Amino acid sequence: MIVLLTGGTGGAKLVLGFHEETAPEDLVVVCNTADDSVVHGLHVSPDVDTIVYTLAGLIDPAKGWGIRGDTFAVLDQLQRLGNESWFRLGDRDIATHLTRTRMLAQGQPLSLITATLCRELGVSSAVLPMSDERVETRLSTPEGELSFQEYFVKARWQPEVLSLRYQGIEQCRPAPGVLEAIRGADLVAVCPSNPATSIGPILAVPGIREALRETSARVAAVSPMVRGRSFSGPAHRFMAILGVEASVAGLAGAYRDFVDVLVIDTEDRDLQPAVEKLGIDVKATSIRMDTLDDKRRLAREILRFSS
Amino acid sequence: MIVLLTGGTGGAKLVLGFHEETAPEDLVVVCNTADDSVVHGLHVSPDVDTIVYTLAGLIDPAKGWGIRGDTFAVLDQLQRLGNESWFRLGDRDIATHLTRTRMLAQGQPLSLITATLCRELGVSSAVLPMSDERVETRLSTPEGELSFQEYFVKARWQPEVLSLRYQGIEQCRPAPGVLEAIRGADLVAVCPSNPATSIGPILAVPGIREALRETSARVAAVSPMVRGRSFSGPAHRFMAILGVEASVAGLAGAYRDFVDVLVIDTEDRDLQPAVEKLGIDVKATSIRMDTLDDKRRLAREILRFSS
Repeated sequence: MIVLLTGGTGGAKLVLGFHEETAPEDLVVVCNTADDSVVHGLHVSPDVDTIVYTLAGLIDPAKGWGIRGDTFAVLDQLQRLGNESWFRLGDRDIATHLTRTRMLAQGQPLSLITATLCRELGVSSAVLPMSDERVETRLSTPEGELSFQEYFVKARWQPEVLSLRYQGIEQCRPAPGVLEAIRGADLVAVCPSNPATSIGPILAVPGIREALRETSARVAAVSPMVRGRSFSGPAHRFMAILGVEASVAGLAGAYRDFVDVLVIDTEDRDLQPAVEKLGIDVKATSIRMDTLDDKRRLAREILRFSS
Repeated sequence: MIVLLTGGTGGAKLVLGFHEETAPEDLVVVCNTADDSVVHGLHVSPDVDTIVYTLAGLIDPAKGWGIRGDTFAVLDQLQRLGNESWFRLGDRDIATHLTRTRMLAQGQPLSLITATLCRELGVSSAVLPMSDERVETRLSTPEGELSFQEYFVKARWQPEVLSLRYQGIEQCRPAPGVLEAIRGADLVAVCPSNPATSIGPILAVPGIREALRETSARVAAVSPMVRGRSFSGPAHRFMAILGVEASVAGLAGAYRDFVDVLVIDTEDRDLQPAVEKLGIDVKATSIRMDTLDDKRRLAREILRFSS
């Protein structure tokens, strides 16, 4: 069993690589849910959906989120009716949110709803929300406190982030199966997602970080940065908030208590000694994942040096 | 001020006729809401929407409900996700229901939400739900109790209806403005909608029937039947439930306490004496409304003999 911890778009690339390189039913994907939002009254789980759509072969490859070829008739009309429309929900995507929102209202937990969506879309890997309870990343900026979507989508990650908190995290519990999967895994891989806003909430769910420390599985993490810059998005800007520098050495410091091996780009090879000094093995390779071949190759390499 | 009492598709034809023949801002349309349903977690108000879309010029003229040229991407995907899809919600139509459902959840009353939708869609007539409280027509059939939509859409009005009740009617109050409009009207017209399932609930809202009896306005009603058969739909099948025969004479009996003039088709002219015997004036004309010209002519005739 291979357990992947992931956020949305960036992490989904590695998730897809593993999906193509292993038996899909051996894969357990634990997703961040701290970016979940209520939009037009609909419960949207952006990271869960990106992973489910990716594994179902539905993902829009250009955008990295949403459903390929989706239309926007509902959103156009919502706008005409005076609603905000900065959060781009496609028509087919809305069907997911309608189904989820209705099932939540009927008292079903997010984990069970996600399993139902996976089954209906033919996804045979397990996709687990980090928690069935509501957790929300709140970002403190000079413009006030923002949700992640307000910061990332509406404000196009331009505001300076002074601090963040995961509202509700202390009271939440890991979703059923999460701790068991980590403890029983053969390999755990932390995907190249934002360490503060995607991986951070997962690690902060009570019990998950401990399970990662204690599991007998090898725990690998893939850097989301090269030369201190993210491939896309603002991950590097969040490193200071974690109290570490924006580099693979900083990342190693943030993950040092549970990671066995850090996968860094060959361009960052000069930082290998700094990472190893923390007792973490290093694997330097090309971590750029533009093509499906890139994704599969990286997954294959991780599988090879972890077995 | 002209007040129209109406259900959906059938009544909407006369509503459009009046809209084209008068100043739109002089029109107050009171709509049945006892067919309202929660579909995929969305609050759908079929009759209100049909009237709003009609007055906004958005109505699908072929179907008589929904938005012209609407697409069904959300519904297709909902079906793929294992949801029922017999209730045909178009994509743009769903934007209406999302807006309404969100505003209801925020505590806004249906009447205010409807006014907002009208404003955003450029409708200058007042469209009032009969009540802001939830009322639901429940039909007793050999197959068990059905909601109106289950009976009408899902079961295609095939089951025998043994009886009906308007659940919640005793506790509900007329929406703000309804009684005032009836009392202050120059003319009230009861549209050719189902007397049991569309007009019946409106009349059963505490206070409305009394206001119709007491208003100094002339109250006209247009028959939804010719020779005891509805133009479309099952209206004639419901007359027995009201305790009257399926004819304009039966209709006159059901409305006799508040209607001044009954508009019947020339084909029903032989029943004119039976209606007049109840103290109701009769206007026999062509009540078929296939074209916009038909709708305008009928509205014009009602305006003429009522002024």
